[in-house]
Amino acid sequence: MTELRKRRDSDGKLLESAESDHIDSEDDKGKTATDLSKTIPTGTDKSPGILDWLVKGLPDRWRNWAVRFIFTMIMIIFFFLVIYGGPLALMVTTLVVQVKCFQEIINIGYAVYRIHGLPWFRSLSWYFLLTSNYFFYGESLVDYFGVVINRTESIRFLVSYHRFISFSLYCVGFVWFVLSLVKKYYMKQFSLFAWTHVALLIVVTQSYLILKNIFDGLIWFIVPVSMIICNDIMAYVFGFFFGKTPLIKLSPKKTWEGFIGGGFSTVIFGFGISYVMCQYPYFVCPIEYSETLEKMSMDCEPSTLFTLQEYHLPVWMKIFGFGATLHLYPFMFHSLSLSIFSSVIGPFGGFFASGFKRAFKIKDFGDVIPGHGGIMDRFDCQFLMATFVNVYISSFIQTESPQKLLSQVLYLKPEQQLQLFHMLKESLENRNILTANI
Amino acid sequence: MTELRKRRDSDGKLLESAESDHIDSEDDKGKTATDLSKTIPTGTDKSPGILDWLVKGLPDRWRNWAVRFIFTMIMIIFFFLVIYGGPLALMVTTLVVQVKCFQEIINIGYAVYRIHGLPWFRSLSWYFLLTSNYFFYGESLVDYFGVVINRTESIRFLVSYHRFISFSLYCVGFVWFVLSLVKKYYMKQFSLFAWTHVALLIVVTQSYLILKNIFDGLIWFIVPVSMIICNDIMAYVFGFFFGKTPLIKLSPKKTWEGFIGGGFSTVIFGFGISYVMCQYPYFVCPIEYSETLEKMSMDCEPSTLFTLQEYHLPVWMKIFGFGATLHLYPFMFHSLSLSIFSSVIGPFGGFFASGFKRAFKIKDFGDVIPGHGGIMDRFDCQFLMATFVNVYISSFIQTESPQKLLSQVLYLKPEQQLQLFHMLKESLENRNILTANI
Repeated sequence: MTELRKRRDSDGKLLESAESDHIDSEDDKGKTATDLSKTIPTGTDKSPGILDWLVKGLPDRWRNWAVRFIFTMIMIIFFFLVIYGGPLALMVTTLVVQVKCFQEIINIGYAVYRIHGLPWFRSLSWYFLLTSNYFFYGESLVDYFGVVINRTESIRFLVSYHRFISFSLYCVGFVWFVLSLVKKYYMKQFSLFAWTHVALLIVVTQSYLILKNIFDGLIWFIVPVSMIICNDIMAYVFGFFFGKTPLIKLSPKKTWEGFIGGGFSTVIFGFGISYVMCQYPYFVCPIEYSETLEKMSMDCEPSTLFTLQEYHLPVWMKIFGFGATLHLYPFMFHSLSLSIFSSVIGPFGGFFASGFKRAFKIKDFGDVIPGHGGIMDRFDCQFLMATFVNVYISSFIQTESPQKLLSQVLYLKPEQQLQLFHMLKESLENRNILTANI
Repeated sequence: MTELRKRRDSDGKLLESAESDHIDSEDDKGKTATDLSKTIPTGTDKSPGILDWLVKGLPDRWRNWAVRFIFTMIMIIFFFLVIYGGPLALMVTTLVVQVKCFQEIINIGYAVYRIHGLPWFRSLSWYFLLTSNYFFYGESLVDYFGVVINRTESIRFLVSYHRFISFSLYCVGFVWFVLSLVKKYYMKQFSLFAWTHVALLIVVTQSYLILKNIFDGLIWFIVPVSMIICNDIMAYVFGFFFGKTPLIKLSPKKTWEGFIGGGFSTVIFGFGISYVMCQYPYFVCPIEYSETLEKMSMDCEPSTLFTLQEYHLPVWMKIFGFGATLHLYPFMFHSLSLSIFSSVIGPFGGFFASGFKRAFKIKDFGDVIPGHGGIMDRFDCQFLMATFVNVYISSFIQTESPQKLLSQVLYLKPEQQLQLFHMLKESLENRNILTANI
């Protein structure tokens, strides 16, 4: 079996980037080969039948543009529907997107390292995806439904031993991998093992963070996601109309004009969408399991972050027609941090992805979305953004609520709860916080 | 520049496993080349001068054995010294070992992907090591010294914004990486980027878990580590004297006899060492910052886990000369789980490492320890074990102590602390836990 990959790089030089066990160069010399792109579904310009009919009248140049536009709209509508569907719909969508992204990344790995004959590899990577999802999704479900699940005796052990079960499952995969090692393929197997783990790191851990953000309130999910979308679209629009100065060699089509125009648009868009969303408890309330209602609830008294505050403006701003005071939601200032991140660092997620695609000489990660490529092509920046939002919340927004801590306290044994109670009482009394109330 | 790697696999076939941008096969055909092993320090049989003198009289066959033995002893003595040095010495040693392991893994990556001319790569991987250590070491220090650090106004922001600072540092590295991408080297750069992250995953995250185990009490560090050492040595001894049946193709020298003998020895050793260590508060007490002493303290009233309990034996065991009751530390039963893991799954860490070494055709990870190879060669199983111990503690040993939770409560705003106090009071009263005490 000949396993040499050959392809031409952009300068037309013949590339050999083989991970090969038996090389038979003479046989291969004939093929000029772009066979990596044959094995990965790497973005197609074909569009489904009904679409063909819709864009039939258009000149060729505009046809792709129209397909892209139509599918952008379809995705945005889908996004609205999912939000309307509520947290559960969002979580399921996140899971589906995550699995799809994982599949796209893994497929590239398969093609790069040629898995023909590699024992067990497909099953193994899916197994690792399953176990890591079991671990991460479990962790967040335990956090939020722990008290409820604890009441159901039969699945209680799933909560108590969650980490142990996940780790055991992982160990099974690990041992399975070691046992599946075959001399001929050592290097490929280890490379794909690493590839799988990097994919898990990018896709699973970060989609877990998306989940956690959703639990802190839908606004922490919707605002960042739509900022990235807005920045993508507006950078494209500004680049299209004013683009002159190339931004980075990696993505020759990106321009400084698009980068800056997209950035400004995103900041303004962020202010606007925050102002609107802050008015609805549906968006700003953390998702908590209500023990009285016995179901998930998004009702709450919005925190100060989401209630209008009066801000006094400096006198000189009167010149510009501003009044003496301005009513804003404090969240809008946080939206500024988010929009700056999404328009300054966010694009680097895109550059990274396009560098990756160039490194492996593929056009797109997949071909599920006509005119756009793979799911991963649209979500490359979303993952980085989700991590930022998560870190931002834990650093700047007080999330440790008394409720959450109480549920942790209730995990303790009764006598320990009592002990904590007395320690807390003493501490509060010492600091004169409690005296007044007793 | 020609970047083709060629080496002979064990069957003597010529291997080409190049990641190459410009291939000039004709030029290279001449070299039969084992040049990968030239660039990695891959275990040397040379021994330092004084050792040469010591083992001079020995026949060649025994010389290596003697060197290996001497350095095993030196390492064990060093291990005792570090334990004697206390938690701080242990943490520093863990850090040094971790950095060394990272260096060894990264060096193999350099050699595999030939970094000549790759811009910035060395600096970048060390930068990522620094940031991830800053993040993980910080996380555990914040957990344990949070209250103290909070008092020192000047470094308070380091605690409050720890995650944000770490993430920002990571983003700088990420952007730096994207900006350092050079067309010629895309594929190598991405591969090394992934390589660095896998190394971080293996080395940094797991050494963070080691640190956390140390904080739970020295016994959680010393027992597992010495179990792996015991298993290594005893499997070697049993294999040496009784080894006949090969265990796994990956490591032809390993035998079933060694595996089983090592396992039994480890279980017995585990019982013994646990029995001894349970008697000393120095080993069993969690390391906590004592506010009254204003320093780290390892004084405590040992938990039931580490106090002698009476166990009634079934009558039939009298036949074997046992009495009616037996006094044991409950920890000894947990030591059973640890020893089983370290002797059943632990070796797979070793098989994994030796598969990895075979994949990249190197003998050892490095050459720092004469007769043993690199640091990573000795610590391959320790990392997996540390993760197991950590998961085990969090699943089966109650670590959420009232003290720890109280310190979390004290992070809340005073009015929230009060709110929590009243909620807890109500909950305790409802369950009739509190009435008696007020």
